[in-house]
Amino acid sequence: MNSKTTHCKIVDCTIRDGGLVNNWDFSVEFVQHLYNTLNEAGVDYMEIGYKNSPKLLKGAESAGPWRFLDDDFLRTVIPQKLNTKLSALVDIGRVDENDILPRDQSMIDLIRVACYIQDVEKALELVQVFHDRGYETTINIMALSNVMDNQLLEAFKLISDSVVDVVYIVDSYGSLNPNDFNYLVDKFKTHLPNKRLGIHAHNNMQLAFANTLLAAEKGVELLDASVYGMGRAAGNCCTELLAANLKGTKYNVRPVLDMIEKYMIPLREKEEWGYIIPYMITGMLDEHPRSAMALRNSADKDKSVDFYDKLTTPEVSHSS
Amino acid sequence: MNSKTTHCKIVDCTIRDGGLVNNWDFSVEFVQHLYNTLNEAGVDYMEIGYKNSPKLLKGAESAGPWRFLDDDFLRTVIPQKLNTKLSALVDIGRVDENDILPRDQSMIDLIRVACYIQDVEKALELVQVFHDRGYETTINIMALSNVMDNQLLEAFKLISDSVVDVVYIVDSYGSLNPNDFNYLVDKFKTHLPNKRLGIHAHNNMQLAFANTLLAAEKGVELLDASVYGMGRAAGNCCTELLAANLKGTKYNVRPVLDMIEKYMIPLREKEEWGYIIPYMITGMLDEHPRSAMALRNSADKDKSVDFYDKLTTPEVSHSS
Repeated sequence: MNSKTTHCKIVDCTIRDGGLVNNWDFSVEFVQHLYNTLNEAGVDYMEIGYKNSPKLLKGAESAGPWRFLDDDFLRTVIPQKLNTKLSALVDIGRVDENDILPRDQSMIDLIRVACYIQDVEKALELVQVFHDRGYETTINIMALSNVMDNQLLEAFKLISDSVVDVVYIVDSYGSLNPNDFNYLVDKFKTHLPNKRLGIHAHNNMQLAFANTLLAAEKGVELLDASVYGMGRAAGNCCTELLAANLKGTKYNVRPVLDMIEKYMIPLREKEEWGYIIPYMITGMLDEHPRSAMALRNSADKDKSVDFYDKLTTPEVSHSS
Repeated sequence: MNSKTTHCKIVDCTIRDGGLVNNWDFSVEFVQHLYNTLNEAGVDYMEIGYKNSPKLLKGAESAGPWRFLDDDFLRTVIPQKLNTKLSALVDIGRVDENDILPRDQSMIDLIRVACYIQDVEKALELVQVFHDRGYETTINIMALSNVMDNQLLEAFKLISDSVVDVVYIVDSYGSLNPNDFNYLVDKFKTHLPNKRLGIHAHNNMQLAFANTLLAAEKGVELLDASVYGMGRAAGNCCTELLAANLKGTKYNVRPVLDMIEKYMIPLREKEEWGYIIPYMITGMLDEHPRSAMALRNSADKDKSVDFYDKLTTPEVSHSS
């Protein structure tokens, strides 16, 4: 409320991260309405999907078109670009760089490369390619809570020497609290003084918004969020909370409320995300939510105590 | 995660604040199970209801017994006190002090007096009575976000000279963020160096847990929470999140998960609380949730945009 957040830009990930919930089954109308909503709300970027290649992924046939963005298709969806820029995420080993047009022929403005710590070098090679084709770029190192310091320091060196515009701090498991982000933002700022920073938080312990707010006040610039928090498992920081609370900024929450009323409330009746106990448990244990997602897809979906016992019994949960 | 929170005590308000959701319609079995759960979890206090007088309140007949606690009844509910202490809340003007037995004849250990800023003097008179009868006491000043500084400073003087044990910082409207709590905790510490502090947060903007964690790390001792966040409107800080995250403490989250699985998930199917957009709106606008509660009880319950427009149109929403 008191600290300035006027440097911030919101990156709405509803389609891309929310697609992990509904297999990217968003109608063209939904996506168009969201694009107009984000424009009216003053949101800076819309991450409209993945730019991975269906040739490099199993089970690709069943997914909606936002999983494998195609430029010709995108032009029919958004015939006229407005102020909100478009972003796409790519994964190491799943993107075919031949699919990426030069930016002046593409709808996409920003390409973000997600990777684990051991793939930072490969990620930066991709970043260089996209940068040379004219795109804004980010590198999003996932699962930071599971990374040892020596690996991170090595990655910082590579990143520092690269052309990447923005470096993301990603709380993949929703296990980090404000103290942890305080520490990580300071660390990233110290070791990457020439880079802008971004944050992607998850809501397993109801801390996504608080963590994002803290990062914003500490100078982090790109803030990932999604409308009504839609995203895999516990979901993300809510776009409406950022729009309502980033003081001294241009954001307008009203169009986001309208999107929630018309589209997200009905969608939430069919699809599940948010603060749900098995996701809280993987968050508190600093684990990937896949075990909790499997539980939620089973008849035992509310049997949290058995689930907790399994994850916390050493001989069952961990290889020795 | 890093700062110590070993001084903290959790005050579980599930029955008292959750009763505002279901008109205190908790079975004796539910309350007994919760008491055992909180004991096993190491939770310090259970606020088991209000100790107001039915003679001083309209519509009292329909409410469950936890709204007007009776000592004889309580003894049948909890025949054997364990480690978790019992707490009751009273409201100014609604409590009959003749109903309050001396502590050595009562099940209750802690009596908390809730009041608005203009009633601090009356509240402290009650506190004196309860203190003289042997109880631990707190004063909970509500709606702090709507209090002017001169009133607050005057209240501090009265409180400082009183016998009250603990002074609560209450975010009645769920409108405060961690910066606000940082400021308020410092202020309370400066002006009330001889008093212990407590926090009661609401979750309108998904900040209840983050605010409580921050307050705990700044030395606030009594932390209000409820299981699965059950409480009026957006609800409270979750007991399970405190039990899971207050490091270096004795708390055990497992029994709380069991209570959620067996009782709270089925209850949440019938009753509503939590992060729901109309409550987010009253939170961001720093208003009492009563308008949002009325909306949620109407056919228009999801019409958030109309609701937002009404609350933000000056000629409609405010007297001039």
